[in-house]
Amino acid sequence: MSVDPAHARDVERCAAVAAGLMKKAGATVKVARTRGFPVVLGAFRAGPRHPTVTIYNHLDVVPAGGADWSRPPFKMAIAGDRFYARGATDDKGPALTALFAARSARELRVPLNIRFLWECEEEIGSPSFEAFLCKTAKSIPTDSVLVSDTIWVARNKPAVSAGLRGLVGVLLALETGEKDCHSGLTGGAARNPLAELAQVVARCVDGRTGRVTIPGFYDGVLPLAREELASFRESGFSLAAFKKAHGLKKLRSGSALSAMKAIWGAPTFEVHGFSGGYQGPGVKTAVPPRGEAKVSMRLVPGQEPRKVLHLLKEHVRRLNPDVRVSGALSLEPFRGVTSGPFAQAAAEAMRFAFGKSPAVVREGGSIGAVVTMEKVLKCPVCLIGLSLPEHGYHGPNEFFDWRQASGGMLAFVKYFEQISRIR
Amino acid sequence: MSVDPAHARDVERCAAVAAGLMKKAGATVKVARTRGFPVVLGAFRAGPRHPTVTIYNHLDVVPAGGADWSRPPFKMAIAGDRFYARGATDDKGPALTALFAARSARELRVPLNIRFLWECEEEIGSPSFEAFLCKTAKSIPTDSVLVSDTIWVARNKPAVSAGLRGLVGVLLALETGEKDCHSGLTGGAARNPLAELAQVVARCVDGRTGRVTIPGFYDGVLPLAREELASFRESGFSLAAFKKAHGLKKLRSGSALSAMKAIWGAPTFEVHGFSGGYQGPGVKTAVPPRGEAKVSMRLVPGQEPRKVLHLLKEHVRRLNPDVRVSGALSLEPFRGVTSGPFAQAAAEAMRFAFGKSPAVVREGGSIGAVVTMEKVLKCPVCLIGLSLPEHGYHGPNEFFDWRQASGGMLAFVKYFEQISRIR
Repeated sequence: MSVDPAHARDVERCAAVAAGLMKKAGATVKVARTRGFPVVLGAFRAGPRHPTVTIYNHLDVVPAGGADWSRPPFKMAIAGDRFYARGATDDKGPALTALFAARSARELRVPLNIRFLWECEEEIGSPSFEAFLCKTAKSIPTDSVLVSDTIWVARNKPAVSAGLRGLVGVLLALETGEKDCHSGLTGGAARNPLAELAQVVARCVDGRTGRVTIPGFYDGVLPLAREELASFRESGFSLAAFKKAHGLKKLRSGSALSAMKAIWGAPTFEVHGFSGGYQGPGVKTAVPPRGEAKVSMRLVPGQEPRKVLHLLKEHVRRLNPDVRVSGALSLEPFRGVTSGPFAQAAAEAMRFAFGKSPAVVREGGSIGAVVTMEKVLKCPVCLIGLSLPEHGYHGPNEFFDWRQASGGMLAFVKYFEQISRIR
Repeated sequence: MSVDPAHARDVERCAAVAAGLMKKAGATVKVARTRGFPVVLGAFRAGPRHPTVTIYNHLDVVPAGGADWSRPPFKMAIAGDRFYARGATDDKGPALTALFAARSARELRVPLNIRFLWECEEEIGSPSFEAFLCKTAKSIPTDSVLVSDTIWVARNKPAVSAGLRGLVGVLLALETGEKDCHSGLTGGAARNPLAELAQVVARCVDGRTGRVTIPGFYDGVLPLAREELASFRESGFSLAAFKKAHGLKKLRSGSALSAMKAIWGAPTFEVHGFSGGYQGPGVKTAVPPRGEAKVSMRLVPGQEPRKVLHLLKEHVRRLNPDVRVSGALSLEPFRGVTSGPFAQAAAEAMRFAFGKSPAVVREGGSIGAVVTMEKVLKCPVCLIGLSLPEHGYHGPNEFFDWRQASGGMLAFVKYFEQISRIR
């Protein structure tokens, strides 16, 4: 996993293994250095007269707390048509699907140059990717980018994503003392960093409704268009399936449409953890010397991470000037193309492989590299995902399955054939 | 430590070692079973015609997170006149001081029966003590109780305590899902248990000022009397020393008197920890399935734990009916005697041993057994402490020192001699 320095060598090893697979498939390969983790570059060359597509995937994963897993998360297990492992669906399964589809396209002599760009820092917000891409862009010209790191809404209705949420991840840290204090001896006079952080958090978001209360936060948010809402309704989204897939007991949203609007079209403020203080059994009545709230905000098109971070910092400074705000992650939201030849090719490919036209939806997650590639490579970026909600992105017992892998190979070969004709 | 079930056998071992020391000092000893951890009972008998004092101390300690300690916390180290170890000043040092004073009193033929009652569950709120004492009271009749588990305000001014705060410790738990969820895929629709708990906490207490906002919370609180405030002013309390002793950077209170009023005369609501969610390095952007806030309230005379717990439960139910409130600790506040022969004997003993009259202050901490002993043994309970603020109750690098130990022995022998004349 890329977030934990203890696993840095595992990420490097993963890049080397991935390069080996690419080479075995017949592609030319290079493990390129960045300021952070490497990028695996590969290519099947058809010739300079033909167009080029670049396929982006990422190899890194989020941590996997072992307790909720039925199997060791870092050892792949095959059960029926399922491939279980951390990273199976996010994003190694789709990466290999695209690799094998590209090999088939080559065998079928599809007149298209196919490049691979496999990143290893997606889960930590791609900190080195932009600098790397700016430096490398000239040597890897491309006419479009295909990203397969998004999720269908339901198994029986393919989906393509025309938008991503951005992300601003932040640590709110407060230190009021040097050591644990006895709450009897000092309580009342001593400050309580966790109580103060809870207060700051509670003034940034209404925990019950999710409404963000940072002044100016919603400024510029682009409302969802009527056609988008119509496509959302046809996406196959079901509240029951959503709750089941994510193991959620109750939702903030009462209807399917309001849930889709909340996860695809609205920004959020989430608390991921409070560190500091006692977390063992029972209650230890000490006043902790420091605390940290790990929070993040998902942003939608029309919001700018830098501006939102500034608004948060100003708000926190007014609430509690001793709280230190450090920005850890920053990703811009993305508004993709919904018409034109690439959108048509994606729709045709999905219909060919899975028998149904895809719904045009949005993605609640963030892929920092998407915005970067659109800017730096100056070409359309199409999000054609293969993952399903039940695959469990970032959750325990993550898996990918053969139906999505085999259908995905068909879809990608068809897509390559279609876009090879776009001039 | 009594709070962590993993150390249950260590608590038992400690009781056995303590009984051995008592026996070696010449006392009769019995390790008495309770529903929880044992109580060590001992006695030096002077005869039925003479009065009896019972000395209460506790042997259990709070956990010691190793990171902030300069030495292993569970191995005693002597450096200069200091005895370092978890429990050195809370409460094993004062316990041994009283034991050795009692042995001297016996050698000096002070006509007083001296009993020992050493508990092993003080730090978890004495859950078995009341039942044990009710059952045992008849066999251990006494005319007064001496408790040495309180703290002077400053090294150069002895203090006796005429009040203790009570305590209600509570876990606020909320479960909204079964597993970690991807905050991109579910954020906005999924509930966030930590954000909801932060909101509940922020509506129970103003984290900045410490003002508790649970309706009815302050009802019945007895205001501090003018004489008490006058004695507080003479206690030697200094804001600078208080901050230094507890390693506090800034306080909520701006003046010494307002700090004393806050820690001795006012109730609190503290957050001790939030469990659930991610606590490792960086930000993991998952929405956790559950969270728990570990909180407690210190209470002052006039407040009743049961009533306060009820107020909290009602308040939380109105704020967020899904939050489960479970009461873990409950201790009544204590208002001690400030006049009469026992108070006079204590003042005289302190003057004799340390050269100065003691200030009559209060204690911000809670000792559940004190209220229980007053009720069940039906006699005055005097709090004559020996610990100093810099000893670090419940903090890292806790210690006791020889000046307090040797002065304490003198004071206790003098006290025994004085109270042997009270009929």
